[in-house]
Amino acid sequence: MWVSVRANVRVSSAARRSAREALQIAVRAGGFSAIVVVGMAVFGVALLYATFYVWLGVDSPDSMKVTDLPLLLVGYGFGASFVALFAQLGGGIYTKAADVGADLVGKVEQGIPEDDPRNPAVIADLVGDNVGDCAARGADLFESIAAEIISAMILGATMAQRCKIEDPSGFILFPLVVHSFDLVVSSVGILSIRGTRDSGLISPIEDPMAIMQKGYSITILLAVLTFGGSTRWLLYTEQAPTAWFNFALCGLVGIITAYAFVWISKYYTDYKHEPVRLLALSSSTGHGTNIIAGVSLGMEATALPVLVISIAIISAFWLGRTCGLVDELGNPTGGLFGTAVATMGMLSTAAYVLTMDMFGPIADNAGGIVEMSQQPESVREITDILDAVGNTTKATTKGFAIGSAALASFLLFSAYMDEVAAFAQLPFKEVDIAIPEVFVGGLLGSMLIFLFSGWACSAVGRTAQEVVTEVRRQFIERPGIMDYKEKPDYGRCVAIVASASLREMIKPGALAILSPMAVGIIFRILGHATGQPLLGAKVVASMLMFATVTGILMALFLNTSGGAWDNAKKYIETGALGGKGSEAHKAAITGDTVGDPFKDTAGPSIHVLIKMLATITLVMAPIFL
Amino acid sequence: MWVSVRANVRVSSAARRSAREALQIAVRAGGFSAIVVVGMAVFGVALLYATFYVWLGVDSPDSMKVTDLPLLLVGYGFGASFVALFAQLGGGIYTKAADVGADLVGKVEQGIPEDDPRNPAVIADLVGDNVGDCAARGADLFESIAAEIISAMILGATMAQRCKIEDPSGFILFPLVVHSFDLVVSSVGILSIRGTRDSGLISPIEDPMAIMQKGYSITILLAVLTFGGSTRWLLYTEQAPTAWFNFALCGLVGIITAYAFVWISKYYTDYKHEPVRLLALSSSTGHGTNIIAGVSLGMEATALPVLVISIAIISAFWLGRTCGLVDELGNPTGGLFGTAVATMGMLSTAAYVLTMDMFGPIADNAGGIVEMSQQPESVREITDILDAVGNTTKATTKGFAIGSAALASFLLFSAYMDEVAAFAQLPFKEVDIAIPEVFVGGLLGSMLIFLFSGWACSAVGRTAQEVVTEVRRQFIERPGIMDYKEKPDYGRCVAIVASASLREMIKPGALAILSPMAVGIIFRILGHATGQPLLGAKVVASMLMFATVTGILMALFLNTSGGAWDNAKKYIETGALGGKGSEAHKAAITGDTVGDPFKDTAGPSIHVLIKMLATITLVMAPIFL
Repeated sequence: MWVSVRANVRVSSAARRSAREALQIAVRAGGFSAIVVVGMAVFGVALLYATFYVWLGVDSPDSMKVTDLPLLLVGYGFGASFVALFAQLGGGIYTKAADVGADLVGKVEQGIPEDDPRNPAVIADLVGDNVGDCAARGADLFESIAAEIISAMILGATMAQRCKIEDPSGFILFPLVVHSFDLVVSSVGILSIRGTRDSGLISPIEDPMAIMQKGYSITILLAVLTFGGSTRWLLYTEQAPTAWFNFALCGLVGIITAYAFVWISKYYTDYKHEPVRLLALSSSTGHGTNIIAGVSLGMEATALPVLVISIAIISAFWLGRTCGLVDELGNPTGGLFGTAVATMGMLSTAAYVLTMDMFGPIADNAGGIVEMSQQPESVREITDILDAVGNTTKATTKGFAIGSAALASFLLFSAYMDEVAAFAQLPFKEVDIAIPEVFVGGLLGSMLIFLFSGWACSAVGRTAQEVVTEVRRQFIERPGIMDYKEKPDYGRCVAIVASASLREMIKPGALAILSPMAVGIIFRILGHATGQPLLGAKVVASMLMFATVTGILMALFLNTSGGAWDNAKKYIETGALGGKGSEAHKAAITGDTVGDPFKDTAGPSIHVLIKMLATITLVMAPIFL
Repeated sequence: MWVSVRANVRVSSAARRSAREALQIAVRAGGFSAIVVVGMAVFGVALLYATFYVWLGVDSPDSMKVTDLPLLLVGYGFGASFVALFAQLGGGIYTKAADVGADLVGKVEQGIPEDDPRNPAVIADLVGDNVGDCAARGADLFESIAAEIISAMILGATMAQRCKIEDPSGFILFPLVVHSFDLVVSSVGILSIRGTRDSGLISPIEDPMAIMQKGYSITILLAVLTFGGSTRWLLYTEQAPTAWFNFALCGLVGIITAYAFVWISKYYTDYKHEPVRLLALSSSTGHGTNIIAGVSLGMEATALPVLVISIAIISAFWLGRTCGLVDELGNPTGGLFGTAVATMGMLSTAAYVLTMDMFGPIADNAGGIVEMSQQPESVREITDILDAVGNTTKATTKGFAIGSAALASFLLFSAYMDEVAAFAQLPFKEVDIAIPEVFVGGLLGSMLIFLFSGWACSAVGRTAQEVVTEVRRQFIERPGIMDYKEKPDYGRCVAIVASASLREMIKPGALAILSPMAVGIIFRILGHATGQPLLGAKVVASMLMFATVTGILMALFLNTSGGAWDNAKKYIETGALGGKGSEAHKAAITGDTVGDPFKDTAGPSIHVLIKMLATITLVMAPIFL
């Protein structure tokens, strides 16, 4: 956050010189934050692991075995989820309440442009961009990476133990190594976006999206190479000489999945493609058809990502299973570790993807600063283009985040079953949804997602209404604002959204934390009363899985429709279908307003929610038995 | 449909005399259709059962046992689902495309009232009310009842066989008897709404909702009594003398669930209560906040029904389990039959509930006829009140339909597992979602619901855009329409929606039918290749259950938010927040337009979809092995 605030000013001043330089500064600032986030996650886990290793005297006789060590790290993941949920939810409410409130009165009622200094809510909006987008997405991915590293370490250790591999440390440390390489290859990708201050004059407005894509391709290529190298180095074992190659292929599956997710979300949210153009067209028949089209676009857009993730889960599992590693009884054991490696593959370019994401709000705010300091139109044009690219990259990274959340929760889920079995000293191998109680657990899990999304959206709606009332009041009480004679009271708006976002966060936050615990305890009692052992743990497991599945779909739906509405509006603003001020534009603004809480509050909060549910059940498992 | 068309005219002429008489005629017409629908479902199953019984010479040596007979009836249920899906989906697209299209140009652009004869799409709209609402909901409940009777007969027969009950016919015929009583008690309830032509002058505008509620209470009371009697008569067995009482309690659970569902949907969609008032209030800050508030209202409204259905499933299962019926090994077996009895209890007032539902479109069209034949304002007032009540009863019966669909699919799901086990000669007792393939099946099942809803909504949107274009064209080409000098070409609009609804139905319909078959066959091949027996059947089972859970939530969300938007608009039209023509009213109309495909196309189609998926897997089970 500290970095992005500094960068805003530098980007806006660079935009006065050249587009390419502005892009470079924005990307590098985003990249710096991204690398700090990923680095901290890796470093934190590594430090904890090393501390435990030395402190508990691992591998000396009578003490803990190294393969049990990763289970101790679960608390770190839980803490990360906890912070991420509040950062994402609170930040999301903050930024979108300010944004919606500012737009409704400013753009729609008073007809002043976005980010105009006369709007009393403009400062709250700009602060919100930093709070909600930079800080929250950072916390989200920090949490994804931490949770994924820890669960992969647990699975690696369990597998190494079952197969009696002599030196298990390669399997345990593998995730840490992969993410260290991530830092290196992403840095290369980020630095490949060079400022060409000399040749900048020739093509001042080059397509920034193409430049970013080129950097991404370089990163992916390098990631494939380093990933293959790491598997050979760490996952080679005498017992199954070709296992490392299967795992390398799993990693490739993950990398391809990441690429497919980024591409699919780009297809559905970029106005260069069919879906957003059709959405923009539906604005021309009114507000109603625009909303219907946006909702159905979002729902349709869940299909392809689900197919991709399904193929990825099954093929990674199958590759892992056939890798040659077997337990004492000769059963293949590598399946789950295969999906874990695929998850690592998917996250192996996380730092670059996070860079693209952080670039968005930096560009957005640079645009705000340019607007408020009344720079010439050409400067605003440059930041506008960067802003539109930022919208698309934001949508694509959300697709990336939900895909990795889906894979990571599948891992956390297996870790949970292992842990319950270890605690209860009972086999816990299946979650049979043909049992009515377990089915009901699933029903409650899916309901949790709907209720949470509903509460998150209504929190934004309510807070935005408060902002609207306040802004209207200021325009009435201080008529000089519109003529720049009086200064609006920015502080009041900031205070309203800050306190409201903290207040509104309580209800959905409590729901996320308390409901799995309540369900686990109630069904534990019911299970004891009716003689069904482990019923509490099973019902929670099914709740978790249904919540994950419904959460993936709901988040895809909310993120995609939100992004598509935003860019349909931007497409109309480029002059299509009547351009700014037309009836179609008004309908598109309505869609954009509805999309704001969808894509920036409820959607990303669900990413965190499903991982949070997984870690909370992992930490609380003993109370469900 | 034949009845409702005749009734429209009679209601509108009765409204000229007295409100009470109009209500009576509308209710009786609805009641007549409802009783025909329920009667046909019961009669059809009974006839088939009797035919098979005689034809196959059941219970003579060397032939079929009576307990295997119900499995033969599955085809009837499948046929019913098939017709219902197309009636609901096609009808839903038809009615809402016409409605949205007529409103967008008529009400919003030209400012003429609803159902004005100058609007070229008005006839298509009125025809749509009959096609979509009367015929489709009739087909929906026909299908619910047929599916529920058949699956309860299968479960009753299986249980009787396992427990070696001497005369199983009581358990098999029980559902038919319950629904025969339904016809009787609902008729009493309907006839209790009497026309008081003499005292009509004293309180001309009595609250019609209260009258309908009174009739419902009478029906429920009678249903409890006859249900208790039937259980004592048919489910009494020497082996477990108190079993019938437990089953009677299961029935009571079902009846209470039905009542709770009706009450909850009324709370969320009637403008006498808090949620719709808050929604109306959010219209005053613009189109965007109205949509956000409606979406979050619908999502929040899923919580209570899910809690009710969860408690109902678990308590009915537990009551059935502890009824004292045991198999040879002494294991309690009555659990699933308990949930079946609860479903019957829930549907034991189906005819009355369907009456309340059919009443809605009849009143709506009577209003349309009154408007077009230019009757005095007082007559229109009466039909308007009936119309508003019809909106609430329509929303409540949708809640009822989804609740019974949820319970019925749980039964069909068990029947499916029994059938697979019988065919494959392998035990099939569990659906373990910890297996990656089975988890992926669930993911695909949930995705199916999102994709289907998206396609259903976009079909309405696209067809409505065609209607808008046509209506705009007619207004431009025939300027005399607005002064009543020229007659609009109603036929063109009817032709457009009729052909478009048939065309648009193909894609979602094919999805519903082909996707479970495709998934089953692909995973069957994969299962054979990787040595996992029954994999295809398991993946389909998990797909079915996830689709059911997600479908219940999605349908609740779509139905509730649609109903709430509609009534928020009606609330503003009563004069609140500025009344007709205000900015808040315009925002509320946007909400209503969005709600139309939600509540009348996608939502009710999902009811049918989840039962259709259950019956299609039941019929196609052999190809998944």
